[in-house]
Amino acid sequence: VRENDLIRWIGEQSRNAFPPAWVGPGDDCAVVTLGDERLLVTTDQVLDGVHVDSRRHSPAEVGRKALARGVSDIAAMAALPLCATATAAVPRESNDAFVQGIYRGLRGAADELACPLVGGDLAAWDQRLAVSVTIIGRPDGIEPVLRHGAQAGDALCVTGALGGAWQHGRDLTFTPRIAQARQLADTVDLHAMIDLSDGLAIDLKRLCAAGGVGAEVLADAVPIHPDAADLAAALGDGEDYELLFALPEAQAERLVADQPLDMAVHRIGRIASATDVLLIGLDGSRQPMPDRGWEHGR
Amino acid sequence: VRENDLIRWIGEQSRNAFPPAWVGPGDDCAVVTLGDERLLVTTDQVLDGVHVDSRRHSPAEVGRKALARGVSDIAAMAALPLCATATAAVPRESNDAFVQGIYRGLRGAADELACPLVGGDLAAWDQRLAVSVTIIGRPDGIEPVLRHGAQAGDALCVTGALGGAWQHGRDLTFTPRIAQARQLADTVDLHAMIDLSDGLAIDLKRLCAAGGVGAEVLADAVPIHPDAADLAAALGDGEDYELLFALPEAQAERLVADQPLDMAVHRIGRIASATDVLLIGLDGSRQPMPDRGWEHGR
Repeated sequence: VRENDLIRWIGEQSRNAFPPAWVGPGDDCAVVTLGDERLLVTTDQVLDGVHVDSRRHSPAEVGRKALARGVSDIAAMAALPLCATATAAVPRESNDAFVQGIYRGLRGAADELACPLVGGDLAAWDQRLAVSVTIIGRPDGIEPVLRHGAQAGDALCVTGALGGAWQHGRDLTFTPRIAQARQLADTVDLHAMIDLSDGLAIDLKRLCAAGGVGAEVLADAVPIHPDAADLAAALGDGEDYELLFALPEAQAERLVADQPLDMAVHRIGRIASATDVLLIGLDGSRQPMPDRGWEHGR
Repeated sequence: VRENDLIRWIGEQSRNAFPPAWVGPGDDCAVVTLGDERLLVTTDQVLDGVHVDSRRHSPAEVGRKALARGVSDIAAMAALPLCATATAAVPRESNDAFVQGIYRGLRGAADELACPLVGGDLAAWDQRLAVSVTIIGRPDGIEPVLRHGAQAGDALCVTGALGGAWQHGRDLTFTPRIAQARQLADTVDLHAMIDLSDGLAIDLKRLCAAGGVGAEVLADAVPIHPDAADLAAALGDGEDYELLFALPEAQAERLVADQPLDMAVHRIGRIASATDVLLIGLDGSRQPMPDRGWEHGR
């Protein structure tokens, strides 16, 4: 099964399937109207052997990751979480402590992230653990920031530093950038934003494709996390759950000078009108952004 | 893993975890406030080998069932569907037609039931198919009808006829009783309501436990579906997705006389103050409601 082709096919099927004010599949969250209110919805799954490894990760770590990943999608639109639901399909031979651990991980993250876990479903089966989480969010006075909207000439910025997250377990402990996204939305004009789940290389291409634009990233400007081996790791490892956003250049300059957030903001490049996504070397060399960094035998 | 004990444990953990106006785990849907609006949320999963059998059921049937089950929970509170999300974990060796079939089943049900599919996630793994669906609903002028609230002396009614659903594939084709629930809520005082997913015996016990009451069901009054072998099948087969509700006795009399719905409403018994749930024979014999009917080698 070729997931990306099928996800694209599903996106095509969904076109014009919703009221014009709604945002459907293809962004970090859907946006739906309810009376005078709007709400955001995102859903995601954590599968044993794909996104986690239950032989290495505790059930509480799996639960926490499942919920926090969803909340990161809410952050990517500068919204606040409202509530969450979760389903868990657990191996039939699981003991109570295993299932309670998953709940405690979900619930702990729900409490920590102010995203009450209001419902769920539990079923046992003969297969491995699958946890699926839906998060509902609310704009609360901030217009949802979509993936499209980046304009040629915009600056590209990221929060934090990238790479080495899953190798060092940061994917199990990260805090979704809700507060930072809200503060950014209050401070600058966010033209487009996405959270970095699959790595800067892939997620930047998504942001560019959504906006029909391209980008030039300065290799030297990408903030490499101390956990990361090198630039390729920072571009390709994924699971950073940091924010990548486009904004007017003058605002980016001020943002980087002022550093108003409780974490670093780095300017890493600019949006271009041509749809290529390029990596610019210190020597001025221009190469296509790799599809991902090293595979690390993952 | 003992699912029922764990679900009870999770319910206990959830107590007092929400604002007082919210309804948390333990009802058909959660109820959440958003500004001046309220929304309902329910989530459920369909697992290959547990709720469906992918060797017998087409992927479109699986997708349809997954979405319709969720909408039935919205019907159980007399609400309207607003939108849906779905995740699918598919076997790695699945072909495109399999995945597209699941989507077409979900999407067909979404279109049919006026519940737009606004988002989702697709991932491949080495295990069997798991589909998880979340439905968001809206009260739209009708106060959500909860599971608790049945009062001693209330009449107990059901829509339709019960039993033999999964043996005859009605679980793959049923229409959630949204319209009927709305019409009932407009016509009578619904004190409590639940949809019949696990069978009248089990779901009636849930409704009674939620309200701290008991019930007496007249064996002769239970509407047995032509697909069902006998009374035990009607009580225990499950997957009927009909409505079970409690209302004032005089209103039930009128309802059964008038039959205002596009389907039959049967009065099957009454709510009692003692918490026993009893089955009353034609000869006046009183026996505890069985935990379920025959197992049918399921």
